[in-house]
Amino acid sequence: MRITILGGGGFLGRKLALRLAEEGTLGGRPITAMTLFDLAAPAPFPAPFPLTCLGGDIAELPEAAIPSGTDVIFHLAAVVSAAAEADYDLGRRVNLRGTDAVIDACRRLAAPPRVVFTSSIATFSGGQGSILDDGARQIPANSYGTQKAAAEMLLADATRRGFMDAVCLRLPTIIVRPGRPNKAASSFFSAIVREPMLGLETELPVPDDFAVWVASPRSAVGWLIHAAAMDTAPLGLDRSLNLPGMSVKVGEILAAMDQVRQGASSLVKRVADPVIAGIVGGWPPGFRAERAPANGFARHEPLIDVIRAFVADDLEATRLDRGL
Amino acid sequence: MRITILGGGGFLGRKLALRLAEEGTLGGRPITAMTLFDLAAPAPFPAPFPLTCLGGDIAELPEAAIPSGTDVIFHLAAVVSAAAEADYDLGRRVNLRGTDAVIDACRRLAAPPRVVFTSSIATFSGGQGSILDDGARQIPANSYGTQKAAAEMLLADATRRGFMDAVCLRLPTIIVRPGRPNKAASSFFSAIVREPMLGLETELPVPDDFAVWVASPRSAVGWLIHAAAMDTAPLGLDRSLNLPGMSVKVGEILAAMDQVRQGASSLVKRVADPVIAGIVGGWPPGFRAERAPANGFARHEPLIDVIRAFVADDLEATRLDRGL
Repeated sequence: MRITILGGGGFLGRKLALRLAEEGTLGGRPITAMTLFDLAAPAPFPAPFPLTCLGGDIAELPEAAIPSGTDVIFHLAAVVSAAAEADYDLGRRVNLRGTDAVIDACRRLAAPPRVVFTSSIATFSGGQGSILDDGARQIPANSYGTQKAAAEMLLADATRRGFMDAVCLRLPTIIVRPGRPNKAASSFFSAIVREPMLGLETELPVPDDFAVWVASPRSAVGWLIHAAAMDTAPLGLDRSLNLPGMSVKVGEILAAMDQVRQGASSLVKRVADPVIAGIVGGWPPGFRAERAPANGFARHEPLIDVIRAFVADDLEATRLDRGL
Repeated sequence: MRITILGGGGFLGRKLALRLAEEGTLGGRPITAMTLFDLAAPAPFPAPFPLTCLGGDIAELPEAAIPSGTDVIFHLAAVVSAAAEADYDLGRRVNLRGTDAVIDACRRLAAPPRVVFTSSIATFSGGQGSILDDGARQIPANSYGTQKAAAEMLLADATRRGFMDAVCLRLPTIIVRPGRPNKAASSFFSAIVREPMLGLETELPVPDDFAVWVASPRSAVGWLIHAAAMDTAPLGLDRSLNLPGMSVKVGEILAAMDQVRQGASSLVKRVADPVIAGIVGGWPPGFRAERAPANGFARHEPLIDVIRAFVADDLEATRLDRGL
């Protein structure tokens, strides 16, 4: 089985690549080759199969990124929300032209590959009051969500035409992201755990009872792998899935952190930020996701396990990376 | 008021242009200039304002098609269903890249213009049993519908960003189209009236009780003009409207025709065609369209008036055009 990960240098792409290298198989079949593609060539790592690392522009996707014989493509390459909002042309180029380039690469293959695409709950709008079911319409309130929703449609059509066999996963907000705080409006959902666990103060711009739809990196990687090997026949024309994340209140995240490290939440300062609250306040805080579990996607682990997994998987690397 | 009609050489575009020339105003403001753009330059006609007719590729939209000071753009340019299905690259180029080119042209204007875009009920799937409400999700079953639905999203986002002020109209199947039969799966819905009225036999590939969501050219043009001048503030983020067409059975169309010309329907031969029935059988035969009338879109005229309007507006021109 030959695999390509587009966006293979990113946070989720790398976790996925490492897990596949560790397992050596996907859907019960041995992995025989892997190609990682990102804007800058991802760093190689030891793997039980030949690993190719390429850098480039996804809108001008080189043929080597999806070589002949590719069975599975994970398409995680994206310009994320804040960046797509700041630079319309860049978002369109990467999120839409990039997806067209993936479609065209699949058309050149002898057999249609499985394509697993990461879409987002940013394709929906709503607000703190709204819990969306699987039939909810996507009315995005940002360019990133618009481009992801449009890409879902193009991939569903490419599937209907026989160019590929696509599964589009609308990922929740991922916590706890390692690394540094960034300017994404959602950055604080990870920072309120990551920074106190590093012994650093951080700011909480929304009230403690603010609700958010989240998933852990472990669950996200598990869902990506399930999507790569699942039976897609039951999906019919609708290739997109709302995933079984968790609706949690910010205060519950802090309480779970304090269970893992007592008093950690004292480093979280309440500093209301109406701009950030306005953006994240437009996202739906919950879904009744029934179709994904019915198609074999695992239910989410408890919140306390999310905090513990961050400590086990990412805390030390983040500390070293940031020189703390 | 300066107006551009993209697809101004097509059937609806030309009817719209002629009606605007006749009225001389739009939304109570005098029309001061009009530009018609199509693949081949549309034929000019006498008008009470300067008229410019241009030909070209919408994906490489020349600046002259949307000159500075343009107030209203009707974006009707499209590769329609059968053609977009037959040629994926052509459909993507015209229906998606063309829409991106319109967005980019609007970004260059000093003030955001009103953009009226013709989308389609082909953005939905369903079947004879389904009556869709305004909250129904678009799950297209063809590339044309996919590209139109994606374009709606891009135009809504361009509106949110302040590039334009878009209204997207999901047009029903238009009957009665003048001209000749063509290879569109929906061609017969017009042919079963047009051909008998010309004294010619035609084939009906579905049963008489087959239901279809239709609108007349007169209603469609009226809706386009309303969309160009309406108050868009109540639309919020959702710039697309299902229009108040009519759900009619094929047998009702034939009965209405016989009321206008007794015995005309004897020229309609029942010849079952499972391929055509399969395609049109995937389209929703009815909508509960409440949002469009609430925003001032006129209810549809009775079916008998649709037949009479075809006779009054288009029958003689079609006869001459076809040398009958």
